[in-house]
Amino acid sequence: MKEVKIGILGLGTVGLAVAENIEKNSGLIAEKTGIKLTVKKACELRKVKINLLVTKDPSAIINDPEISIVVETIGGIDPAGKLVIEALRAHKHVVTSNKELVATKMRELLLAAELNGSQILFEGAVGGGIPILNTLRDELVGNRFSEIYGIVNGTTNYILSKMTHEKKEFSEVLKAAQKLGYAEANPAADIEGYDATYKAAIIAAIGFGCSVKWENIYREGIEKIGAEDIEYAGEIGYVIKLLAIAKRTQGKLEVRVHPALVAKNHPLASVEENFNAFYVKGEPVGDLMFYGPGAGGAATSSAVIGDVIALATQKPRKIVLNENIQMRKMEEIESRYYIRLTAQDKFGVLAGIAKIFADQKVSIAAVNQKETVGNTSTIVILLHKVIEKNLLAALEGIKKSGTVKEVCNVIRIL
Amino acid sequence: MKEVKIGILGLGTVGLAVAENIEKNSGLIAEKTGIKLTVKKACELRKVKINLLVTKDPSAIINDPEISIVVETIGGIDPAGKLVIEALRAHKHVVTSNKELVATKMRELLLAAELNGSQILFEGAVGGGIPILNTLRDELVGNRFSEIYGIVNGTTNYILSKMTHEKKEFSEVLKAAQKLGYAEANPAADIEGYDATYKAAIIAAIGFGCSVKWENIYREGIEKIGAEDIEYAGEIGYVIKLLAIAKRTQGKLEVRVHPALVAKNHPLASVEENFNAFYVKGEPVGDLMFYGPGAGGAATSSAVIGDVIALATQKPRKIVLNENIQMRKMEEIESRYYIRLTAQDKFGVLAGIAKIFADQKVSIAAVNQKETVGNTSTIVILLHKVIEKNLLAALEGIKKSGTVKEVCNVIRIL
Repeated sequence: MKEVKIGILGLGTVGLAVAENIEKNSGLIAEKTGIKLTVKKACELRKVKINLLVTKDPSAIINDPEISIVVETIGGIDPAGKLVIEALRAHKHVVTSNKELVATKMRELLLAAELNGSQILFEGAVGGGIPILNTLRDELVGNRFSEIYGIVNGTTNYILSKMTHEKKEFSEVLKAAQKLGYAEANPAADIEGYDATYKAAIIAAIGFGCSVKWENIYREGIEKIGAEDIEYAGEIGYVIKLLAIAKRTQGKLEVRVHPALVAKNHPLASVEENFNAFYVKGEPVGDLMFYGPGAGGAATSSAVIGDVIALATQKPRKIVLNENIQMRKMEEIESRYYIRLTAQDKFGVLAGIAKIFADQKVSIAAVNQKETVGNTSTIVILLHKVIEKNLLAALEGIKKSGTVKEVCNVIRIL
Repeated sequence: MKEVKIGILGLGTVGLAVAENIEKNSGLIAEKTGIKLTVKKACELRKVKINLLVTKDPSAIINDPEISIVVETIGGIDPAGKLVIEALRAHKHVVTSNKELVATKMRELLLAAELNGSQILFEGAVGGGIPILNTLRDELVGNRFSEIYGIVNGTTNYILSKMTHEKKEFSEVLKAAQKLGYAEANPAADIEGYDATYKAAIIAAIGFGCSVKWENIYREGIEKIGAEDIEYAGEIGYVIKLLAIAKRTQGKLEVRVHPALVAKNHPLASVEENFNAFYVKGEPVGDLMFYGPGAGGAATSSAVIGDVIALATQKPRKIVLNENIQMRKMEEIESRYYIRLTAQDKFGVLAGIAKIFADQKVSIAAVNQKETVGNTSTIVILLHKVIEKNLLAALEGIKKSGTVKEVCNVIRIL
């Protein structure tokens, strides 16, 4: 039986789960693949309780000639990036679940791998245990994708689910989520959509061959979503989800992260709690959805081990980036919109708003005047598909006109 | 650029779509994989309009030294099986989407492949365009699965969806489905669950390494599901779906096909129309769902092309069958149940039923006495988990006791 020895850099939640599950399922893995997979050693600075050779020196792993695959589960850019490059240069294959690193340095990592005859795989960096990246690349290789979008951040999906079912405001639910450990003490990376942009960048690369910098991806978080937006959306048959979207329209790619109204009969609408899901439209396959746990040590270890076995059985998995993909500017995207605004409850307000929209060729699909408090009415407007810059111009016009008190929220509709 | 030439046996819906989509996406495939993939010729007895060399002689494909991969899309056992074996013996790799053939002759096909240094892949045989088999085998290789179940037949899911939303009886919906081409003129293979047993057998093999004969799989179709079952199930929060189930409990595998009540908040419940979906429980990954088009030329061609590319890029994909897996007998399975029965509307009937159940250690979770027509009441009973043979004994007792007029339907609850 072929023996494959690996080393793990970083014994945090994921690294520990990788070590534990390789040990637990090693017999089964051998039965399925004919490979005896063992973790030879791990590198970790903290003390951890594990029946495994643990070193504080990463080079003891990177330079161990018996180790053919290095798993990086340190997280963050530094020192993880440096160590991954070193491992590739030492002709090791690398598996990482480090979304920030992969999103930030994909090109550099792929180049280092290529130059050294190594490979780097990172299924666990997106969607935790959901097999999405390798599936897009391998099983679905015959497809031209038009759209890949999904719920890629468990924390925000948990918060939005709770806001929906418990009819509570964002800040209240966030606090509860932090107490339960579903949100970080400093929740900005999740709440403000940074985590989702890492994943969007990786999806754009694997699905569309497009090397987009995550910093350049349009990003809106969920912190401005109000309980009333969720309520009004619900009344007209929608839920609100934070989506990462990569979409090809007329030869250009748009990549963006923002909350969106999702129709209740769309398969993504029923993705609750901290689950993730990816919706894929491809030609010839049609529409697919992949659903599962988007984070967590156990789930992510499944993805990491899958990649390790792929490398151990020498399945080549090519990632080709295409330099010539044009990006669509955010102001050029087309979308439907939900708008919540407040106005004085007086004659002619709706007519005034409608005129400004019409002047910018923004077509209204539905208007709903909600409760009036004092002399202030809340109005919810749904727009037909419109180019974003026309909407922005219309909203500018509305603000200037003085017909409305406040444009409280503008949310795209999937 | 590496050139790979394939031959297609059978230009039906799937074969044609394979040829067309390879041509359509060949540039993209070359970009992604570095392989120039072409269909050198196809074999078809009927006349087809296609810009392709078509022969009536399959050996012109099987014995063509330039062709390295043979795609079999004839369907059925004969002559498809014979030709696949011939192709494998001629050291060709084979890709097939022929569920009946794979379910019936898997062992023989795998052996022929092994003996001749070839491989046979069949992603398209289950779930159409949904990447499930290769994903279970490759991406999820590190997992021990406890359950894999799903909606694997589009026709029956379409009929059940329509019965649910339009509140119509089975026979009426079936006729409409036949008119629309969603059901065959002879619908038995779908309706009675045969198609689903083929897929269950293949899933059991790939997910659990278990070689189970499809003829031995417990099978119930949807022909006995009444509009009132769907209505009553709906009232208590369930929909009815035809499921193929493979499940490991206490070291034994159970494989079965039957309708089941699925809780409305379960991700499978919202799989509508003729879509398919697979729900997978694995350790360490947790719960996953894969959703998409379960049939059709275009969708299935995506799976076939994926397999072709896998073979062209020489990704080994091992299938290991384990002879030592014990099967659980159907009478030994544990399940919750929904029971609809009719009884005379008189004092003591419910008590009598309850006593017979209690005597067989069958525990009632809920009872609902529905409408009374004349002096006949409909009673719906939900049971807690029970071993099937105990339920059968209780039902026998109830029938003999004369307390009920008829046990109209017994449906398992997922």
